[in-house]
Amino acid sequence: MPQAVVRKIKKEGLDAFLFSSRPSVFYLTRFSSSHAYALLTAEGQRVFLTDGRYLLRAKERLGPKGWTVVEVKSPLFENLVKVLKELGVSKVGLEEDRVVLSWFENFACRARTEGIKTVPYAGFLDEFRMVKTPEEVALIERAVQITDEVYLDLLEFLKENSARLEDLKESDLRRFLLCGYLERGAKGESFPSIVAAGENSAVPHHETGDTPLRRNSVLLIDTGCVYGGYCSDFTRTIFLGRPDPELVRVYEAVAEAHRRALEAVRVGRPIKEVDLAAREYLESVGYGKYFTHSTGHGVGIEIHEPPRVYKTEEIPIREGMVFTVEPGVYLPGKGGVRLENVVVATERGPRVLSKVSLEPVFLG
Amino acid sequence: MPQAVVRKIKKEGLDAFLFSSRPSVFYLTRFSSSHAYALLTAEGQRVFLTDGRYLLRAKERLGPKGWTVVEVKSPLFENLVKVLKELGVSKVGLEEDRVVLSWFENFACRARTEGIKTVPYAGFLDEFRMVKTPEEVALIERAVQITDEVYLDLLEFLKENSARLEDLKESDLRRFLLCGYLERGAKGESFPSIVAAGENSAVPHHETGDTPLRRNSVLLIDTGCVYGGYCSDFTRTIFLGRPDPELVRVYEAVAEAHRRALEAVRVGRPIKEVDLAAREYLESVGYGKYFTHSTGHGVGIEIHEPPRVYKTEEIPIREGMVFTVEPGVYLPGKGGVRLENVVVATERGPRVLSKVSLEPVFLG
Repeated sequence: MPQAVVRKIKKEGLDAFLFSSRPSVFYLTRFSSSHAYALLTAEGQRVFLTDGRYLLRAKERLGPKGWTVVEVKSPLFENLVKVLKELGVSKVGLEEDRVVLSWFENFACRARTEGIKTVPYAGFLDEFRMVKTPEEVALIERAVQITDEVYLDLLEFLKENSARLEDLKESDLRRFLLCGYLERGAKGESFPSIVAAGENSAVPHHETGDTPLRRNSVLLIDTGCVYGGYCSDFTRTIFLGRPDPELVRVYEAVAEAHRRALEAVRVGRPIKEVDLAAREYLESVGYGKYFTHSTGHGVGIEIHEPPRVYKTEEIPIREGMVFTVEPGVYLPGKGGVRLENVVVATERGPRVLSKVSLEPVFLG
Repeated sequence: MPQAVVRKIKKEGLDAFLFSSRPSVFYLTRFSSSHAYALLTAEGQRVFLTDGRYLLRAKERLGPKGWTVVEVKSPLFENLVKVLKELGVSKVGLEEDRVVLSWFENFACRARTEGIKTVPYAGFLDEFRMVKTPEEVALIERAVQITDEVYLDLLEFLKENSARLEDLKESDLRRFLLCGYLERGAKGESFPSIVAAGENSAVPHHETGDTPLRRNSVLLIDTGCVYGGYCSDFTRTIFLGRPDPELVRVYEAVAEAHRRALEAVRVGRPIKEVDLAAREYLESVGYGKYFTHSTGHGVGIEIHEPPRVYKTEEIPIREGMVFTVEPGVYLPGKGGVRLENVVVATERGPRVLSKVSLEPVFLG
């Protein structure tokens, strides 16, 4: 847990900050649960609040790390406020962007009656979470490795079954991926894998279903897993049989856009340049209007987290930022191509975590 | 989509209601996406708002059902407000309990500048969603059937491997369950399956890990899947080898508490009676303080949804309500037992969806 967070609490003039969102609580404690709060005071005290289901485990794991573990019973808000009062907190920060309105209002109301002021913050931890430590990068890299291995296994499986591709459904491939992740020790998928056969690939967020694989078309696979609480994200588009030549041209354009975006990953430069490098290239070859999303997004504890990699984002790239590069072109009714890697920004340029080539693969 | 929702919008004096949470939007439209809004007017107009990634599919699926499908572009809030203005809406309801504070405030602010009043509601759809239609019950029942089948397969697998139980890890069993769900056409788990070996079972929400199965102890399995957008939820506790006799006594107590809770599922009676039936029995046999959670919760589109089955809940049981009955007793450092079924409340009493017996199973 970075000391910088405590310094920020102090600098903001708060007595404490009550973190309530799952990603924030996991980031600060490395303890994963569905109901917990992490309270940090400006003096560096650490209080972990959870309910009876997690109490035992929390005490075992967090006690030795300097956390005081407290059970929160109902009524919830009264109990949370009581803990603040006991610590002498009179001004507390809350996460406004991660908290539902009714929670926030309820809490603020109870706090007020006890003379405690609540200050909502959006993205209080973003500046810290955006820049990954070497330990965090190692977990993401392991998640990417597992994704690579399972994807390469899937390619082998498709080759072995190239005579009967039409007997396979999108959902069969998703099952192959997910079971592969679990076999290799991942916690699961980082999001429901997208397997899009034929023209389904023209829907960027296609919901994997029972569509059979389609020969003489494309197969788009967007997948990832969770390892040690961190996500991978990976997309490749494969040709099955003899596809429409336009989709082969689209592939070349997307691959070139991807390379240009990678080249724009330079520490100190605004992150929008990564998006613009891909976007302007696709516009120059006439595919601009078929590139309907941003070039990428941060990846870490959450599959989508700051920074956004988009043309309006001025935030400078910092060493240790981890984000996706994933341009795509989607021709309605025909098909789409997306190529995605996770990269780490370093002083020596982008480090691409996946070892799977971006060269087109033709099967069947 | 129940007409009663439109009637409620009218009755509340609203011109329209903008639903923004994923479960609400799915409930009203049966269309699943990660970014969409469902707008209903008091006159019964239906507008579905989503972004470019889902637009094509939404038009295909929802157009024929009377929805006008509109693309939401950035800036998001201006665009949402513009749609309201075009429809002549001057007072709109919003879901306060499902919406993050910053979203709500941003929206309310833009709406105000256009003369549109926003009214936050907590649980606007709860009264409708709590009572399932026969179609919804059928989907939940199918999810329960799949869970039953995969669980019984797992028991067979454990029997076949009874000589080498210690070679199996908790995570191996979770993989068996999840892959089984996918093979049978489920979308995935309804939550990360809990497989708790030995004393891990004393942690009600144990995180499945690499602990090997432990002979002469219990094995707790809490799992479920999603089918057609609806969840199942199921827990059994198995004895491996010759367990501590106290855990066998605990099992008998939990099974009896479960039976008593079931008997208390009576249409028209307050739902707290279901919790009290289990709780008072466990208290009477000295295990009250080891029953650290509520007896159950509603199940449907979400794995946890209203109603709560807890001693403070006065809400009357209605025909078609679907909820879990899952008393548990957890002896710290020793082990825990939980037995969970999903039941449908009917005029003829509770209908238990799982066909798996509650009798104790001894393996190895």
